[in-house]
Amino acid sequence: MRRYASVPFSDVQITGPFWSERLETVLTRTIPSQHKQLEKFNMLRSLKLPKPVPPTTIPPHPNGFTTEIFWDSDIGKWVEAASYALTHRRDAVIEAQIEEIVADLEKAQAPDGYLNCWYLEREPQNRWTNLRDNHELYNAGHLLEGAVAYFRATGRDRMLAVMERYMDHIAATFGPDKKRGYCGHQEIELALVKAFHATGKRKFLDLATYFIDERGAQPHYFDQEAEARGEAPGKYGQGTYEYSQSHLPVRQQTKVVGHAVRAMYMYTAMADLAAEHGDDGLKAACERLWRDVTETRMYVTGGFGPSARNEGFTQDYDLPNDTAYAETCASVAMVFWAARMLNLDLDGQYADTLELALYNNALAGLSRDGETYFYDNKLESDGTHQRWEWHPCPCCTMNVARLVASIGGYVFGAAKDEIALHLYGGASATLPVAGGQAQITESSNYPWDGAIRVQVKSDRAFTLSLRIPSWCEGATARVNGQTIPMTTERGYLRIHRQWADDVVELHLPMPPHRVYAHPEVKADIGRVAIKRGPLVYCLEGRDQEAPLHRLRLPSSAALTATFRTDLLGGIATVTATGQATQTPTALYTTTPAAEQPSPLTAVPYYIWANRGPNPMQVWVRE
Amino acid sequence: MRRYASVPFSDVQITGPFWSERLETVLTRTIPSQHKQLEKFNMLRSLKLPKPVPPTTIPPHPNGFTTEIFWDSDIGKWVEAASYALTHRRDAVIEAQIEEIVADLEKAQAPDGYLNCWYLEREPQNRWTNLRDNHELYNAGHLLEGAVAYFRATGRDRMLAVMERYMDHIAATFGPDKKRGYCGHQEIELALVKAFHATGKRKFLDLATYFIDERGAQPHYFDQEAEARGEAPGKYGQGTYEYSQSHLPVRQQTKVVGHAVRAMYMYTAMADLAAEHGDDGLKAACERLWRDVTETRMYVTGGFGPSARNEGFTQDYDLPNDTAYAETCASVAMVFWAARMLNLDLDGQYADTLELALYNNALAGLSRDGETYFYDNKLESDGTHQRWEWHPCPCCTMNVARLVASIGGYVFGAAKDEIALHLYGGASATLPVAGGQAQITESSNYPWDGAIRVQVKSDRAFTLSLRIPSWCEGATARVNGQTIPMTTERGYLRIHRQWADDVVELHLPMPPHRVYAHPEVKADIGRVAIKRGPLVYCLEGRDQEAPLHRLRLPSSAALTATFRTDLLGGIATVTATGQATQTPTALYTTTPAAEQPSPLTAVPYYIWANRGPNPMQVWVRE
Repeated sequence: MRRYASVPFSDVQITGPFWSERLETVLTRTIPSQHKQLEKFNMLRSLKLPKPVPPTTIPPHPNGFTTEIFWDSDIGKWVEAASYALTHRRDAVIEAQIEEIVADLEKAQAPDGYLNCWYLEREPQNRWTNLRDNHELYNAGHLLEGAVAYFRATGRDRMLAVMERYMDHIAATFGPDKKRGYCGHQEIELALVKAFHATGKRKFLDLATYFIDERGAQPHYFDQEAEARGEAPGKYGQGTYEYSQSHLPVRQQTKVVGHAVRAMYMYTAMADLAAEHGDDGLKAACERLWRDVTETRMYVTGGFGPSARNEGFTQDYDLPNDTAYAETCASVAMVFWAARMLNLDLDGQYADTLELALYNNALAGLSRDGETYFYDNKLESDGTHQRWEWHPCPCCTMNVARLVASIGGYVFGAAKDEIALHLYGGASATLPVAGGQAQITESSNYPWDGAIRVQVKSDRAFTLSLRIPSWCEGATARVNGQTIPMTTERGYLRIHRQWADDVVELHLPMPPHRVYAHPEVKADIGRVAIKRGPLVYCLEGRDQEAPLHRLRLPSSAALTATFRTDLLGGIATVTATGQATQTPTALYTTTPAAEQPSPLTAVPYYIWANRGPNPMQVWVRE
Repeated sequence: MRRYASVPFSDVQITGPFWSERLETVLTRTIPSQHKQLEKFNMLRSLKLPKPVPPTTIPPHPNGFTTEIFWDSDIGKWVEAASYALTHRRDAVIEAQIEEIVADLEKAQAPDGYLNCWYLEREPQNRWTNLRDNHELYNAGHLLEGAVAYFRATGRDRMLAVMERYMDHIAATFGPDKKRGYCGHQEIELALVKAFHATGKRKFLDLATYFIDERGAQPHYFDQEAEARGEAPGKYGQGTYEYSQSHLPVRQQTKVVGHAVRAMYMYTAMADLAAEHGDDGLKAACERLWRDVTETRMYVTGGFGPSARNEGFTQDYDLPNDTAYAETCASVAMVFWAARMLNLDLDGQYADTLELALYNNALAGLSRDGETYFYDNKLESDGTHQRWEWHPCPCCTMNVARLVASIGGYVFGAAKDEIALHLYGGASATLPVAGGQAQITESSNYPWDGAIRVQVKSDRAFTLSLRIPSWCEGATARVNGQTIPMTTERGYLRIHRQWADDVVELHLPMPPHRVYAHPEVKADIGRVAIKRGPLVYCLEGRDQEAPLHRLRLPSSAALTATFRTDLLGGIATVTATGQATQTPTALYTTTPAAEQPSPLTAVPYYIWANRGPNPMQVWVRE
């Protein structure tokens, strides 16, 4: 069933200005500064058992619990991001930092392979007694992802060997004829598929398959586990097992529910396993859940999970703006899931949402200077919502770093006789195809400009499939200067020919346009958002002449895009002549307050909150 | 300085249909059912010291504290409301109920006059040790108001005698040369002025004057009192002394702050004392505070105090709809304050706000059947905001009852050579004026109709001042069939003549009209409210064909008033052809969802939530 495979980021050169800048920032600022933060908060020292320093300097988590239990995962994620960085540019300092972590892990690992620094240090007798809450397998998953990334980046398998021993221990512990457990926070499942891809060892895939298949089975493992701890079964802190998507076997799930990141990580693994096993039932479940989330539970910015209470989903169309949670991690994870769906089916709907989540909610999580972060991504702010230097639960910081550092991995899809280009912006790769290879060089100033040039050098006949984004109207294409018909198949222009040294030019018009929400999204009714190309725009207070809440963007106002080299490192703004409500004489009047024309300047959502405290609106009154 | 005096409700006959119905409901249903609730929750038994039954059946207050400490005040307020009822119609059952309360109070009263059932029962040693929090003087004030009302209604002075002994004890305890205390919850001040008016005894006025003059003086009494209890001074549960308007001496206060009911009760007493003493400084303070609240901090419904946190005021223009607190008591108290301001100056702005608060936020607090209540009055509801049968802090229940039962007291103002008519709706009274008297009979179907007929029978020359409400445009007047010029002086048409048996006809056109809020009221921007005459309207879900959030009232839609005898006992509805957003195909679209005409039916705000759970909006999208 699987027709496409992702092309690993390590095989792709990022050359365009937009992603080169983000990548350079992540490599030179984000990853080094994150290592400093891991040191500052004693997170790295937590690997050195017995732990020499109590973690007194970590800020308390707002919910009051210790976050130390998650620290292995954060370190794993940093190793992963740092390894991606090494692929772009070797760096002796970063390599030494990773090696020190690997050495610590090697030393910490128990003789039987077990490796969780919290449990080894604090309560070794309680291993595997609370999978529901304590993230043991989640931590293992992130460390495994780090190990795979470090192996792919450097060929060094020392960390992978440590993790393989741990996975063998886990496989010996859990299974149909052993403990029938699985993690309260999905993650290890997708990590195991990555390990399978990196090593070809089937045991990783089998363990991932077991975890996914077992999830939600009755009698419920979390009930049994709670009873074994002497606790009332079913008394989940979050109320129901929907929180961890373990309320039903995964193939029976039809609604996206619960903690958004757990959901997205699980769907990612489900799509992976659907592909590996040709499992139509699992694929159908993925497709149902995809429709549910994109048709009823997604912010216009590609954010997911409106509620801080469960860090997750609530009801259909419940998408408030000023209290939006829309965790950065959830959008990063949506990129993962969408990429897998795109491999199952070359369907532009997956690439469209991938791109939306990537360029907007996910990218907003990282500041321009690469050293501060949004955990939650509101779509409206009175100016008090600002990025953190660090977070007591720093999951989002490394998630956005590893996404940007591996951005090349989302550009291409490869099948036997076909190469698909999902994302534009300047990238090149030499890819195997049709028994030979092809050198593909895409050049553009995307997302600012829709003029795309794709040079293909190959002596093979194959299909080059170019994504025509759903936001684009009036796309045109030429091959070697000759216009070709714009006939798309599920969002892709498929050009089959015998290639030589050819140039395909794609013109994707991207005038700024308006977006409206479904009227059941109560917060957005009577309001309009602005998009241009893949970017969602917002109004920041400092760019306007009137307070945000007084501004209106009438439906008749023309939207004009202007590239401003002087602003925020160079961005396209969208301007319009809005209307600003004037001050009336009284608290209540019988005629509406007068309006006066007032210029509006919108900036891309991903780059907001980089100029100090600043009110912001994505949805503007129309 | 004082030109006008209120005419006691007991001298006024209510004859019009609107208030007759409300009055009858309060007399026959509200007051008896409240007595049942006072019994059910052991509140009446709390007067029978030593207390025989612990109050286990009272529902816990949402904030977790005991409300028993306030119970004396609730009983005082019930006696007051029940006494007003007796003025309209003698009732042996009610009289016996009041007499039992009086007997209990008499028995409970300490030999030195002290009378607070909580302290006498629970902690007699701690009297007067926490004026800031424990409502001791507040309770005394409400019992005193009850005693004055019972005395006015029946001429029986037994309860007044009990309370006079208590006031003597209080006067012996507090003063410039004694304990320099005053109550954390203002109320006793206005009660003392009432006692002065009822008895002519100056000592009541002197004590009220002391409490108002001492408030906010430094060193701060609440600090000293806290220190005496061994607590840190200034550590007020509510953060600052603004909560109880004791942050500054009252004459220096310029902003309405803190707990809304405390504020309004205090301003009421300040206006009383300004009149009694001809105190221009106090009057100026009242005027400043009046401007502040009506120009920046008042809901369109005449509600006050948006925040549940402090049951009070926040910032200018902070008037959210779905979380509005707008306590019923605060609007009732605004009626009290506005009536006093109107006596200081015959200025229609005071009567306009009195009428607004009365007909809308205050009256909404009582159900049609007279037996359920709103404590907080939201201006938007998803259908979950419903009236209570009783409240752990039942202050609002008796407050709205005593207001309705004494409604006649707000109709007239009387000066030496002048009678003013503030409110219409059918009332008559024979009043002393110009050395003689006048029989004034106002007949109308107000607030449904603006045709007002005032018959004056008198042999005196005097000024009849008829209020022309600020919401009214194009008012006309005739005297004995002859049109007279509509020349108003601060909102009143003043007709001076030698009267005999004359008829003044006033025509107050009341087409439904639109109201808009100041653009700094963020919740209302782009929205419109409907008013007709003194009534604010709202949309209830069940009257519409589309969900409320999908409805829009375009500025071009004509508003039509229709009297519907079949609806809610007979009300004028306002209908219009609105627009309802249709369901689009996708979560996000590039064109706004289509609209279709959809009839809108608005009902008066005061009568909403009488037909089961029902979403509601005052402010509708325009």
